[in-house]
Amino acid sequence: MDHSHKAILVSVGDELVLGQTVDTNSAWLSQQLASIGYGILQHLTVPDDQAQIERAIRESATRCQTVVISGGLGPTADDLTRQALAAALGAELSINESWLNHMRAFFRGVNRPMPESNAIQAMVPAGCRLIWNYHGTAAGIDAVMNAESTCRLFAVPGVPKEMKGMFNDHILPILSALSGGAVILSATLHTFNLGESAIAEMLGDLMDRSRNPSVGTTVSGGVVSLRINARYPSLSEAQARLAATVADCRTRLGTLIYGQDEQTLASVVSAALLNPPAPYGAGPLSIATAESCTGGLLAKMLTDIPGSSAYFQQGWITYSNNAKTSLLSVDPQLLATHGAVSEAVVAAMAENARKIAGATFALAISGVAGPGGGTPQKPVGTVCIALASPSSTSATTHHFPGDREMVRDRTAKTALNRLRLLFFT
Amino acid sequence: MDHSHKAILVSVGDELVLGQTVDTNSAWLSQQLASIGYGILQHLTVPDDQAQIERAIRESATRCQTVVISGGLGPTADDLTRQALAAALGAELSINESWLNHMRAFFRGVNRPMPESNAIQAMVPAGCRLIWNYHGTAAGIDAVMNAESTCRLFAVPGVPKEMKGMFNDHILPILSALSGGAVILSATLHTFNLGESAIAEMLGDLMDRSRNPSVGTTVSGGVVSLRINARYPSLSEAQARLAATVADCRTRLGTLIYGQDEQTLASVVSAALLNPPAPYGAGPLSIATAESCTGGLLAKMLTDIPGSSAYFQQGWITYSNNAKTSLLSVDPQLLATHGAVSEAVVAAMAENARKIAGATFALAISGVAGPGGGTPQKPVGTVCIALASPSSTSATTHHFPGDREMVRDRTAKTALNRLRLLFFT
Repeated sequence: MDHSHKAILVSVGDELVLGQTVDTNSAWLSQQLASIGYGILQHLTVPDDQAQIERAIRESATRCQTVVISGGLGPTADDLTRQALAAALGAELSINESWLNHMRAFFRGVNRPMPESNAIQAMVPAGCRLIWNYHGTAAGIDAVMNAESTCRLFAVPGVPKEMKGMFNDHILPILSALSGGAVILSATLHTFNLGESAIAEMLGDLMDRSRNPSVGTTVSGGVVSLRINARYPSLSEAQARLAATVADCRTRLGTLIYGQDEQTLASVVSAALLNPPAPYGAGPLSIATAESCTGGLLAKMLTDIPGSSAYFQQGWITYSNNAKTSLLSVDPQLLATHGAVSEAVVAAMAENARKIAGATFALAISGVAGPGGGTPQKPVGTVCIALASPSSTSATTHHFPGDREMVRDRTAKTALNRLRLLFFT
Repeated sequence: MDHSHKAILVSVGDELVLGQTVDTNSAWLSQQLASIGYGILQHLTVPDDQAQIERAIRESATRCQTVVISGGLGPTADDLTRQALAAALGAELSINESWLNHMRAFFRGVNRPMPESNAIQAMVPAGCRLIWNYHGTAAGIDAVMNAESTCRLFAVPGVPKEMKGMFNDHILPILSALSGGAVILSATLHTFNLGESAIAEMLGDLMDRSRNPSVGTTVSGGVVSLRINARYPSLSEAQARLAATVADCRTRLGTLIYGQDEQTLASVVSAALLNPPAPYGAGPLSIATAESCTGGLLAKMLTDIPGSSAYFQQGWITYSNNAKTSLLSVDPQLLATHGAVSEAVVAAMAENARKIAGATFALAISGVAGPGGGTPQKPVGTVCIALASPSSTSATTHHFPGDREMVRDRTAKTALNRLRLLFFT
């Protein structure tokens, strides 16, 4: 096995193992390590138990050249990472006088006596370096263990601010120097409207496991995202190859891709309304909403975006037939003939909402979100969506799977996507 | 080592190991397992690499009697948990016809051909049971491995909703039965409007670490929840002791507690509108909404509840001053004098919304959600909320901390809580 530039992260804490705290440190550390070319073999989370911490350290050290241990450096009886690391190294813990003096000065500064239990935080296994903590009283430990090959171990506190400070100040420069080279750059592209396997078929050989840059897919809330990782010796090469694969993905998926990295359907629609592409002329354009089964979710998504008042001024939630008639002047005859969940009714909702609001566009939604209300002709999941624009109104019927929450979520996103595609096709 | 009632959680995914996604599944699963008396030995996170997944499964199975593996059950080439589990078991993967038929029916239902790559999701190692997935296409796997002792393994998807569904429907009953002996019953009470430490002070000795039933607090989205676990040899004793501690908590916190277990502020408000307590007479009563800064979020929460059309017929999103005037007849002079974020304006919005909708109640919201729009007099987080009822209208001003999303969430929940307290004080 190639041990070089591989790392394992060990998190220590009963609160993590019991699920009372979500481990965000490992995700943060992984991102930092990946960005300087380290491959992460695994994350391991163990309780505040000295034997289990020691075992985790020993096993990790035999499998890679870099181990970062976070947590268990506090002053109380259940903080046992120092003791476990000393045992794994076969070294005695000894006091670091300069850190002890630093802690005493800290407590004098806040006019408190230093509790004797804090002295443990100045203990470091013999032969190890101390990592200075600029945000707290727990000193970190920088150790070397000769396992199958030489492994560098760093123990840092679990408090995110202290952990991040030590990583940036002490650990990052050392690991950057040790890795001598490889750069990993990542990008994420987001698609909507097709399932994961259909996207994978369109990507074809781009998803080969051995490819560099690699392309992988994940799904969340109906959005299939492509994660692209490029690993090369130089930054310029990584940038160029990453850009080439991003361009390949865009060519194969076209307008199925709605955004990159932090972008959402709402943020992309927002940007298009604020700065519309030709032929729409200068922005901002505006959008009004008329919702039945989504009950405000579409408007909520549009107003999630800071500054949304530039393009969103008003919306209606017309949940009952009466409300559709009284607030949006939908002809009762139309409702009686076609039913509330029909292309004719949503088209009227969108046209009238657009007119009353004086908006450039209006989106209207009516559907059966469930669990009740379905009929053989219009089962749960049947949704009609209309988009009214200055030139025309179009309505479509959809069948969404899943429960009430999923139907409402997919419906609102599909409506946003309809508006997006008006600009980008 | 005592292997009984010990569990290891294995999470699979490049996105987890690379830190692009935070692993929340392990925390959730740990809480569930702890609540039925399982001790968690460790969490282990490995990449989408068959050899590493197999190694993690093998090693975990030798150390405990229960392993839950989440992730890697998707349809694409980077989903390798099935293959790894089959290899660890020394079994061939074979197709499960009933799941394959179920998937084909699902794709027919949404009018799409089933991509051939999805067939892998119906594969289960020979001799294993399939775990039904009510929320997606990935079947789960229920396996038994004879390692140092017999180990029960469950493979579930990484998508939280699918994972949680399989855990609750299939895994929990099995593990509860296997754990034998002690009965653990849990209840969760939810409070809104006070912080965690204030709630803890009111609970006092009920939160002693050694107490049985135990009482612990967690916070999420402004809601402080009390988790009560009762562990006794018999079901009847556990039920009686749990009920007594629940009653104790209710006595100490009174109307701060809005609900129990799956209840939300919206579901409690919904139930009160459908079946109002005296002196409101027979239900359903109705509620209309008029929202500015929450942009539809309050109406969305009210309509999250199935059957909400019985009490919710219409709502307005009046984001601009013009919309407040044209749709809700708010006097322009009132807006000019007091500003849109004022008790006078939200009171007018609520009263007029109630009148136009012909509803029993109306809630109105206007505020500065940020990040822009704050002034020294009305900084970001300033929100006015009004509740109009048949007898009166009352308006209050609040200052919420946090970012745009948090301000909007707390605002909508505070509005729901206002309506709730009308019924329960």
